[in-house]
Amino acid sequence: MQPLRIAHVAPVATAIPPVKSGSVQTMTSLLTEGLVARGHDVTLFATGDSTTKARLSATYPHGYWHDATMWPWELYEMMNIAAAVERAREFDLIHYEAAYYPMALSFSRLSAVPLIQTLHHAPTSDEVALWRRYPDAPFIAISSEQAGLLTGLNVPSVVLHSVDTDRFVFRQRPDDYLLYLGRFTPGKGALQAIEVARRTGIRLLMAAAENDYYRNEIAPLVDGVHVKYVGEVDFDGKVALYGGARALLYPLQAAEPFGLVLAESIACGTPVAALDCGAVREVVDEGITGAVYADVADMATHLDRVLTLDRRRVRQRAVARFGVDRMVDEYVAAYRAVLETHQRR
Amino acid sequence: MQPLRIAHVAPVATAIPPVKSGSVQTMTSLLTEGLVARGHDVTLFATGDSTTKARLSATYPHGYWHDATMWPWELYEMMNIAAAVERAREFDLIHYEAAYYPMALSFSRLSAVPLIQTLHHAPTSDEVALWRRYPDAPFIAISSEQAGLLTGLNVPSVVLHSVDTDRFVFRQRPDDYLLYLGRFTPGKGALQAIEVARRTGIRLLMAAAENDYYRNEIAPLVDGVHVKYVGEVDFDGKVALYGGARALLYPLQAAEPFGLVLAESIACGTPVAALDCGAVREVVDEGITGAVYADVADMATHLDRVLTLDRRRVRQRAVARFGVDRMVDEYVAAYRAVLETHQRR
Repeated sequence: MQPLRIAHVAPVATAIPPVKSGSVQTMTSLLTEGLVARGHDVTLFATGDSTTKARLSATYPHGYWHDATMWPWELYEMMNIAAAVERAREFDLIHYEAAYYPMALSFSRLSAVPLIQTLHHAPTSDEVALWRRYPDAPFIAISSEQAGLLTGLNVPSVVLHSVDTDRFVFRQRPDDYLLYLGRFTPGKGALQAIEVARRTGIRLLMAAAENDYYRNEIAPLVDGVHVKYVGEVDFDGKVALYGGARALLYPLQAAEPFGLVLAESIACGTPVAALDCGAVREVVDEGITGAVYADVADMATHLDRVLTLDRRRVRQRAVARFGVDRMVDEYVAAYRAVLETHQRR
Repeated sequence: MQPLRIAHVAPVATAIPPVKSGSVQTMTSLLTEGLVARGHDVTLFATGDSTTKARLSATYPHGYWHDATMWPWELYEMMNIAAAVERAREFDLIHYEAAYYPMALSFSRLSAVPLIQTLHHAPTSDEVALWRRYPDAPFIAISSEQAGLLTGLNVPSVVLHSVDTDRFVFRQRPDDYLLYLGRFTPGKGALQAIEVARRTGIRLLMAAAENDYYRNEIAPLVDGVHVKYVGEVDFDGKVALYGGARALLYPLQAAEPFGLVLAESIACGTPVAALDCGAVREVVDEGITGAVYADVADMATHLDRVLTLDRRRVRQRAVARFGVDRMVDEYVAAYRAVLETHQRR
């Protein structure tokens, strides 16, 4: 098949890929580089300090996360997507990665080619009601969980995220601890993770930036021995933490549209113990990469189901399901499906 | 000449005209109704609870100032302007009244007809540097002061604001007080107004919403006799306050792009005493509608120059210079100038 001419529009908050962290930026980079590797003609609309094998169209030298004069950020994002839409006829399609909200909707009827969007959050029903002003604009959902929220919108495909399995390296023999990794919020289940550790008697390491919720609710339960706080870690520290854990605890209390830490953990060979919430069942393969429990008591009682999983098999399944190849293949298929529908009109 | 087919895009924060206050909304309404009265074919893109003789294209039933679920407001504004741009071929031009920032820039190269913008604030140089990505997009400035800030942009015309001189009624004989009316901020010169009142021995009434600056800096100087705080007033209360004042004090400390209270005051026949700042000299006709002073001492010493002005003549000049007719005429001329330039390309 003909290679596609793709305008890939990144957020302009920071570089692609991000120097520190930024899941939207990371995902955008993985997709762009994967598309280029398959021979597609990709123009990445991103900040000038981005690193890519695609053709870079830099609207600004750097991102607004690093420059207080770049305000209001919405106007910077608008001009970046406008730069792509103004050149629409040079492309087969435009793919917009919406870090905050789907700005591309307002441009979708003004674009000469299909404008496809990936959202990176779980929208409220009020947001979705507004977006229904553009019922034809195609969204690629990041999970069936997220697709279920996009009622009345055009969601032709679901493509799960991927992780860079070259960088999330496999480790066969873990140390003797459980891991909680994620922001300290009630929704992420930090308290529940501590409860599971307490009941199983296995040590818990907790990694994330300190915040008020940590100081008020979590810190009093951290004794430095059975429950240890290791602070915020960089990329290498994160990979080391995953690899050393017997299991990642993911006792989610509020639905999320994906759950990237699950994919990262299993890529390192570390199985996951999760509660049934949000997109968890779409990411975890029961009995292969982890287990999904009904509640905290169930998780604590039957944690062995996760601890005894074959770590090499966990890694293999992670590579197959969350490696970049699968994601890029599925995005290309999703693009072609949108183009076909568009041409049939 | 042929009537123009105009898409007039209002902010969608509240109704046009606003039920309570909102200078952008008021100005938008005055212009739209004035254009309709002259026989132009106007489509107003505004909230459904707006009142207009133009054709109303309601993107939403009401504005986001009144509905916390209408969030983020930027996306609501974007979709409202997009609704006009999507129908561009039905119009000769689109005129966007930017309450916050010139979102229309991002749409300007995608619009089939010229997209003209009126800004209602004084932009920073960083903002303007960003806007220069669109050097051809036409701005109509609200003062030469504002035009001077729009360096490197296309500013073919300056059109000063107007006030509804039917509603700001003339009063021949004032009471015996000076008036401060405006938000309590250091830039508006509330402290300086008190100083002038103290030095001249004339009573000062102060009207605006209470805020921290009022409580901390102004309230200690309010004695209820020589300096009296009358709170926040509605429209009728405002007109009554203007009419009863011997003069409006406008000792501005930070430049503003226009100064609507000046035009409102003189429409009521009440002359103004101002400091030379921002657009003040463009609004005040020295020796006719007021006086512009070098500093507070100068204002206090020579306040008589204002107090002795002929109030009927103040009103007449206000009607001539800030009546709606003048503004509408100038906007139509500005529209035609943009269209002529556009056609010559």
